[in-house]
Amino acid sequence: MILDSINSPADLKTLDERQLKQLASEIRGELMRTVPITGGHLAANLGVVELTIALHYALNAPEDKIVWDVGHQTYVHKMLTGRFGKMETMRKLGGLSGFPKPDESEYDSFGTGHSSTAISAALGMAVARTLNGETYTVAAVVGDGSMTGGLAFEGLNNCGNENIPMMIILNDNEMSISKNVGALSHYFAKIRSSKRYNLTKLVVKKSLSKVPVIGNFLVNVVERIKSVIKAVFIPNVWFEELNINYIGTVDGHNIKKMIKIFERAKDFDTPVLIHVKTKKGKGNEIIEGNPEKYHSVSENCDIKCAGAKLSDEQNTPTSFSLAFGKKLCELAEADERITAITAAMADGTGLSEFEVKFPERFFDVGIAEQHAVTFAAGLAISGKKPFVAVYSSFLQRAYDQIIHDVCIQKLPVVFCIDRAGISGRDGETHNGQFDIAFLQHIPNMTLFAPSTLSELSHALDYASKAKTPVAIRYSKMCPCEHEIECEDVFSWRHTMMTGNEKAVVFACGTMVANALKAKEICSKLGVDIVVVNMLCIKPKDETILNKMKAIKLWVTAEDGCISGGIGSTLSSFAAEKSGDIKVKHIGIPDNFVPHGNISEIYGICGMTANDIAGAVLEEIL
Amino acid sequence: MILDSINSPADLKTLDERQLKQLASEIRGELMRTVPITGGHLAANLGVVELTIALHYALNAPEDKIVWDVGHQTYVHKMLTGRFGKMETMRKLGGLSGFPKPDESEYDSFGTGHSSTAISAALGMAVARTLNGETYTVAAVVGDGSMTGGLAFEGLNNCGNENIPMMIILNDNEMSISKNVGALSHYFAKIRSSKRYNLTKLVVKKSLSKVPVIGNFLVNVVERIKSVIKAVFIPNVWFEELNINYIGTVDGHNIKKMIKIFERAKDFDTPVLIHVKTKKGKGNEIIEGNPEKYHSVSENCDIKCAGAKLSDEQNTPTSFSLAFGKKLCELAEADERITAITAAMADGTGLSEFEVKFPERFFDVGIAEQHAVTFAAGLAISGKKPFVAVYSSFLQRAYDQIIHDVCIQKLPVVFCIDRAGISGRDGETHNGQFDIAFLQHIPNMTLFAPSTLSELSHALDYASKAKTPVAIRYSKMCPCEHEIECEDVFSWRHTMMTGNEKAVVFACGTMVANALKAKEICSKLGVDIVVVNMLCIKPKDETILNKMKAIKLWVTAEDGCISGGIGSTLSSFAAEKSGDIKVKHIGIPDNFVPHGNISEIYGICGMTANDIAGAVLEEIL
Repeated sequence: MILDSINSPADLKTLDERQLKQLASEIRGELMRTVPITGGHLAANLGVVELTIALHYALNAPEDKIVWDVGHQTYVHKMLTGRFGKMETMRKLGGLSGFPKPDESEYDSFGTGHSSTAISAALGMAVARTLNGETYTVAAVVGDGSMTGGLAFEGLNNCGNENIPMMIILNDNEMSISKNVGALSHYFAKIRSSKRYNLTKLVVKKSLSKVPVIGNFLVNVVERIKSVIKAVFIPNVWFEELNINYIGTVDGHNIKKMIKIFERAKDFDTPVLIHVKTKKGKGNEIIEGNPEKYHSVSENCDIKCAGAKLSDEQNTPTSFSLAFGKKLCELAEADERITAITAAMADGTGLSEFEVKFPERFFDVGIAEQHAVTFAAGLAISGKKPFVAVYSSFLQRAYDQIIHDVCIQKLPVVFCIDRAGISGRDGETHNGQFDIAFLQHIPNMTLFAPSTLSELSHALDYASKAKTPVAIRYSKMCPCEHEIECEDVFSWRHTMMTGNEKAVVFACGTMVANALKAKEICSKLGVDIVVVNMLCIKPKDETILNKMKAIKLWVTAEDGCISGGIGSTLSSFAAEKSGDIKVKHIGIPDNFVPHGNISEIYGICGMTANDIAGAVLEEIL
Repeated sequence: MILDSINSPADLKTLDERQLKQLASEIRGELMRTVPITGGHLAANLGVVELTIALHYALNAPEDKIVWDVGHQTYVHKMLTGRFGKMETMRKLGGLSGFPKPDESEYDSFGTGHSSTAISAALGMAVARTLNGETYTVAAVVGDGSMTGGLAFEGLNNCGNENIPMMIILNDNEMSISKNVGALSHYFAKIRSSKRYNLTKLVVKKSLSKVPVIGNFLVNVVERIKSVIKAVFIPNVWFEELNINYIGTVDGHNIKKMIKIFERAKDFDTPVLIHVKTKKGKGNEIIEGNPEKYHSVSENCDIKCAGAKLSDEQNTPTSFSLAFGKKLCELAEADERITAITAAMADGTGLSEFEVKFPERFFDVGIAEQHAVTFAAGLAISGKKPFVAVYSSFLQRAYDQIIHDVCIQKLPVVFCIDRAGISGRDGETHNGQFDIAFLQHIPNMTLFAPSTLSELSHALDYASKAKTPVAIRYSKMCPCEHEIECEDVFSWRHTMMTGNEKAVVFACGTMVANALKAKEICSKLGVDIVVVNMLCIKPKDETILNKMKAIKLWVTAEDGCISGGIGSTLSSFAAEKSGDIKVKHIGIPDNFVPHGNISEIYGICGMTANDIAGAVLEEIL
């Protein structure tokens, strides 16, 4: 096995073409063996096997820097940079991350997880290099889906302006997570459909800023015709207008050709974009045929079984995501103002059924969260009822749009926020730990955190009629069932009280179940507590809060960061309205949280039923 | 005076060309008369006089919808839509807003204030219209500077994809607030430099998605040559690759021609971009010659006097902005790792001197806050020491990048946050009320709020050496001088204690001065209080907090939203560590705050010295 002998990219350089091909085959075998065990991103990594080999062959990492946009396609990179033996630990607590992390390896030059950051980060690194008088290569590897994110465009625009050496490898597999959308993808399709020519001839070093502007009409036309004739042979106009040289398209499964191109591109003294065509799922017929489905697989799944466990635990009939999707279809049936918007996450957020049933009211805007929100604001101000379905950590990118375009104008946009709280194996970049904290301080926002499917349904009913902004956040964890379900969305419910309660636990979302278990634990030790279920985080139910002022120990329990969360809101209330209540906080402490399964992370963060009970008991006993 | 007779855009349509020109001249006169009184955006409004007249002539607002990107160029629009008589109230408490606001007029179809939102919002409005089977026109007016914002690109990309009627008017004045930057501006310059032709011929309805893709090389080349020859005459390739029809360039000061083009563009059944060339400051020589300086003028200024009061109150030698700029130059002199980044705000953030002294270490990335932060992260991971200077409300747009690219990786990026807290006359969209709340819950962040220039200097000294992320937020208000200035940045200082204190006021930034005045007020009534100056908001000084636990009434005072701010942090501490302290909160309540001068807004929000004293006294007396 050649893969065994690759301890660093330097080892690649001793291999000939045949051996490199064999290596690619071995890597595919390893991906097919380990990813179904660990879970993770399968199709994307199968697609970049040759690209990664060629890039590490042509470059000299870690001296040369590679920034992987989104980062979930770095499994091959990890195998080639000394981490082959640890692939089975991936996404496990203490094991390899599913994303590049500088503190995991010197070969991971920049941490990524969210989309469209690589060009900006690589440009910063390239500028630093040039300022330092150094000459190493900086390369950003960016998927075509990521190019729809505004940040990528901002990066390209500034890259063309700085005009220093930097490689951008456009990994064009014709899809982000869902099928690619937006006008830019039509443009890529056009480029892909054009015949390939001798690549050597295609290397154009035209720099538009160097073309002198002559005020003479004829000269201008001649100049333009010249540059334009070139555009006939190289459909590169879009990038070159941004002052970025374009080479393409290159077969992303031909190692030899890519090495040649990458080696040539290293010598450019200006930014150069290399357009590489790859196939997601390459090498496995089932996955190639349905790459969207195999984008991400759950641990211990059976690739050949097309059924249940393929995607992550989210896609069970009882998940919040699917229940949301189903309910939204019911609401949309009755109210034609309802529209649904997703940013390349129709499947993950449960909107697939809606997309099929109401295609004209369904909008997948691609990876463009900012636009998703402002577009929704435009719909809402025109009388529509837009539901924006999005993962919590990605909604961070639209924080300003939520404030500026939705909440200042009090527009009835509904945010359906999936993967709220700890999301588990994807780790730091994907945890939705901040949503309560960044949403509840925004004026005019109403914020719900359902703990059961029925509460989700009530919240959606309310949201569908609301005349102001509403956010509903829910976990990747399965919903629970319990006896203090809230029926009126604004009225918190609590467990039966005897008057002997020594403490009250305020909980929301998934933490309600833990709080109820904590009550049982305390009860066995003879300590009565009351549990309050805060379906509605904002506004607070002041009737219940005032009632609970009689109890002098409060515990708050949330699946989100404590700072700025419900703990801080309820502390403020208690300290301002009473001044004689002790409040203890359970939630995510002031840290980024490692990857692992959700229960493990709850344990690490002190968010289990035992932790809640402990917080009560250490004060009472 | 014709302007007197214009009560709505309908009145425009009775005027002939000569009268429209006279109207333009009268409007310029009114702008020159009223804006120097009220303060506000002068150069931009002088530039769009004819554009606004032509647009309202060609369209039928309010049935047709106009979305003004950034919104500070809507003074002419306001004059033509029934608000001429109120121009002198602009930016005053209770008067007209300096930005479009749907609750001010039905002609303001969408609220704006931040850049690059108009295309997305207008697309949402256009989609809603088409879904409703209606046919009115939706137009977005976008400056060339705003086009560098990623959100604008996301909007364009989706606009090309939706492919429904919508007008985008590119108001190209060759600058945003500062001079335009980025590759896109070179592209615009190229277009501008090309000769203008018969505009009728320039109306191209080519839709790239409709060009059939034929797998034959020759046919493809012929097709491309055809479309490319067209590109020789119409440099529209960039937009047309995004599937957006392009008309241009059009003289933005020729009312008749613009009316003709706009009327034609209304009939397109696809998106169309009209590239209009305008001149900022048009009609006034002084302003045309220096539009950057006259971008925004302060109230009661003298346009002819090139000196002090021209720009806003910020640009006094004692402002935080200028002190920051000066100090950063000193630091950069001694440490060549230091780089400065701004998003089109070099002047406003005080970086002009740095730009001149260290051009190779200065980066104006244009209106692209997300990129500014991720680019800085790239610099920082490569050993540089980037300082990102930005207004508080604009930094909201980079919230995800602060988390994902800077704080997860603990990179030593320094955020120098100007216009923190109430910024006054620009109102809701420009208040920096959320920065404490959205920054202090991010792990690995250190957050300072200096109250004096000396504290700013200490904080910058610390930041220049820090190995982790640092944010320093400061007000548009002038710094004060007082006796409890913090010398060690992490140690809070407080007024002398006698042991008789009945309350402690924790204050930061501009509120330290108010807290000290409150202490005097209380003292006169025989109530002793202690004032703590929290230069460092995060981490908290637990030594001082523990010392203050002996006092059972705490008041927190901050120039920021109470929810998620220092009030909530200190309440959490008091409620968790003591449980017997009453905490009262002074700060911006859970509302968006109207425009007015800063003192007036402090009064409305209950943030004056009297309010602080009142919070103490109502408990004590």
